[in-house]
Amino acid sequence: MQHNPLITLTTDFGYKDPFVGIMKGIIFDINPFVKIVDITHDISPQNILEAALSIEMSFESFPYNTIHVVVVDPDVGSTRRPILVMTDRHYFIGPDNGVFSQIYKLKHETLSVIHITSEHYFLPQRSSTFHGRDIFAPVAAWLSRGIDPSKFGEPITGYVAISVPVPFISEKHVLEGEIIYIDRFGNATTNLKNKEINDLCTSNPAGILKVFIKEKEAPLKNHYSEAEDAELYSLINSFGYLELFVYRGNASSVFDIHVGKKVKVTLS
Amino acid sequence: MQHNPLITLTTDFGYKDPFVGIMKGIIFDINPFVKIVDITHDISPQNILEAALSIEMSFESFPYNTIHVVVVDPDVGSTRRPILVMTDRHYFIGPDNGVFSQIYKLKHETLSVIHITSEHYFLPQRSSTFHGRDIFAPVAAWLSRGIDPSKFGEPITGYVAISVPVPFISEKHVLEGEIIYIDRFGNATTNLKNKEINDLCTSNPAGILKVFIKEKEAPLKNHYSEAEDAELYSLINSFGYLELFVYRGNASSVFDIHVGKKVKVTLS
Amino acid sequence: MQHNPLITLTTDFGYKDPFVGIMKGIIFDINPFVKIVDITHDISPQNILEAALSIEMSFESFPYNTIHVVVVDPDVGSTRRPILVMTDRHYFIGPDNGVFSQIYKLKHETLSVIHITSEHYFLPQRSSTFHGRDIFAPVAAWLSRGIDPSKFGEPITGYVAISVPVPFISEKHVLEGEIIYIDRFGNATTNLKNKEINDLCTSNPAGILKVFIKEKEAPLKNHYSEAEDAELYSLINSFGYLELFVYRGNASSVFDIHVGKKVKVTLS
Repeated sequence: MQHNPLITLTTDFGYKDPFVGIMKGIIFDINPFVKIVDITHDISPQNILEAALSIEMSFESFPYNTIHVVVVDPDVGSTRRPILVMTDRHYFIGPDNGVFSQIYKLKHETLSVIHITSEHYFLPQRSSTFHGRDIFAPVAAWLSRGIDPSKFGEPITGYVAISVPVPFISEKHVLEGEIIYIDRFGNATTNLKNKEINDLCTSNPAGILKVFIKEKEAPLKNHYSEAEDAELYSLINSFGYLELFVYRGNASSVFDIHVGKKVKVTLS
Repeated sequence: MQHNPLITLTTDFGYKDPFVGIMKGIIFDINPFVKIVDITHDISPQNILEAALSIEMSFESFPYNTIHVVVVDPDVGSTRRPILVMTDRHYFIGPDNGVFSQIYKLKHETLSVIHITSEHYFLPQRSSTFHGRDIFAPVAAWLSRGIDPSKFGEPITGYVAISVPVPFISEKHVLEGEIIYIDRFGNATTNLKNKEINDLCTSNPAGILKVFIKEKEAPLKNHYSEAEDAELYSLINSFGYLELFVYRGNASSVFDIHVGKKVKVTLS
Repeated sequence: MQHNPLITLTTDFGYKDPFVGIMKGIIFDINPFVKIVDITHDISPQNILEAALSIEMSFESFPYNTIHVVVVDPDVGSTRRPILVMTDRHYFIGPDNGVFSQIYKLKHETLSVIHITSEHYFLPQRSSTFHGRDIFAPVAAWLSRGIDPSKFGEPITGYVAISVPVPFISEKHVLEGEIIYIDRFGNATTNLKNKEINDLCTSNPAGILKVFIKEKEAPLKNHYSEAEDAELYSLINSFGYLELFVYRGNASSVFDIHVGKKVKVTLS
């Protein structure tokens, strides 16, 4: 590991309470030379799916060996395990409740998961309600100082993954998915990736692709301002997902689009 | 003082306006080698009690010699004094309006308060509405560069403290307190500390401890997920305070619990 | 350029989505030694005027050679140009849509604008919806590493400026302006600057200055707590602008004051 790696933080702690600042204090107390980057602290309270999608969208933009700490942890203090996930290029630290589900799905040369048990690296007085401060922050800080991952505990295999809705071919030339994320602009991300849509196209290269949500068509564009009016449109977004949008407007509120709504892509 | 200490910032400036970024610009202009950590900028506008509790919860998680700047300052520009508070291990800079009340109450080997008057360390053009930029940020930055605290002004004794509600024994085996803080999860922190509840227990070691708010019992648990349902429960939180909560829910909104509501702990 | 300059970020990306964290990951991947400061990420979605005012208020508090990245970019992916603006002492990077309008207006010894076209400094896979990640962050990071500005593209002259309302003399001894910004405290900033009000005064040094909004007078004070009650008052704020306020209250919500409302200053 390089000497001054990055630690990222993703939590549902919000911006009003001092919890995130406290985690940073603990980290800098152990490693004054590390850099800390906030990914977001506004994950909806206890929403593991949102946390899983946020870290999936983010981690690859960071340098190799970055340590990504994710604390969305409704069962803090129970027997749910603290874990350290290692891929070829990144480290992930958080509760074993599915926040790393999307990481597990990606292709990695290596993937291993360690159950963090070495209390030696925890804060001496440990609460049962704030493991962000007592376990995850100090373990991340010690890891950033070059402590060997094997020191934190033993490898495990039965780690927890949550089910994220997957798209499917419902009939010939019809791909079905759903909305999985709404961003601050009201843009609605589906679970349909570039690749799946391309595969659909290959089945009939001469066909015309159409996107529907609740029977309403959302014509495909290349970028936001290609839309000529305030109607609903779609595009492939910067993470490779099909996204529904309104140019200079809020698709989610105007067209009542929420997480879970079904989306259909047809080729005709 | 170490050469590159930390400066923390706690304000009611919010996240929309550029005020916090501006303070950081001033600090880095004076000391490019310091690290700055945000504790929170979402203290309710002009709420001195909230600021006092936030810094109390946070400061001990930071390394020795950290400089904690707190700017909740409704009387900026008036004769209220800018002060520098020094304890054995930490520095605090802000207005003399009670934001450091909870710090004064703690046991310290030494505690001294300096009235900051040396305009030499202020910005040259000083406004009467933004001392965060014009006084507190530059003084913190100069202090972080190793300027001796005595250079900033003279020691004072009559500094301002606000009254924070204190718990009391209302009748035999009954401890009364109140809600002093609601966090982003809707968890409601009382002013009843671990130690006071333990003292109550000592008065009758065989007794059974019960927690009530508005005649409603909130049974004691060890951690959040020990609650079996969405009812109101209580626990000792990670700061040593009695806290009311709903597992995976919002106690404040569901049970209409706000700052100031009375809480009773009985031993029977 | 110094070796480890500052990069500031001002966006409308909000605090919920991981977009800002992603930009920081990209920057640190290219230059691990740079410092990043958030000015704000809560510019109202696609509000170019708000972004222009925020960076105007902020940039001078930062050290010389700071690189200010502003991403409020409704037309991302279209033909709108990415630009690098250079003044005597600061760099600005963002879309050519008017976000730097207020910078262009200031007096500078030199001002030049470069159309950023060198794809060599962009991310290899470029999306059409997230140039904050794909163009602005990497270009800022390369600039912070000392790449010569001329490497990024050719100088241009016809860059875009939005019209920001300007005050005017409507009749003798009457200056008219309007509200251009509301801060988190509900304080309402006008477009009337210190200097314009002073000029008005010079026209009749014995005259009495009065501030009106919708026929309601807002008496001038020196600082907030000089107001004796919860009525509407005004002062010259820390950026040199006339501002309307309520002491310990919210002028915007209590007196229904919004961006665009007309304000009159009279001398009688």
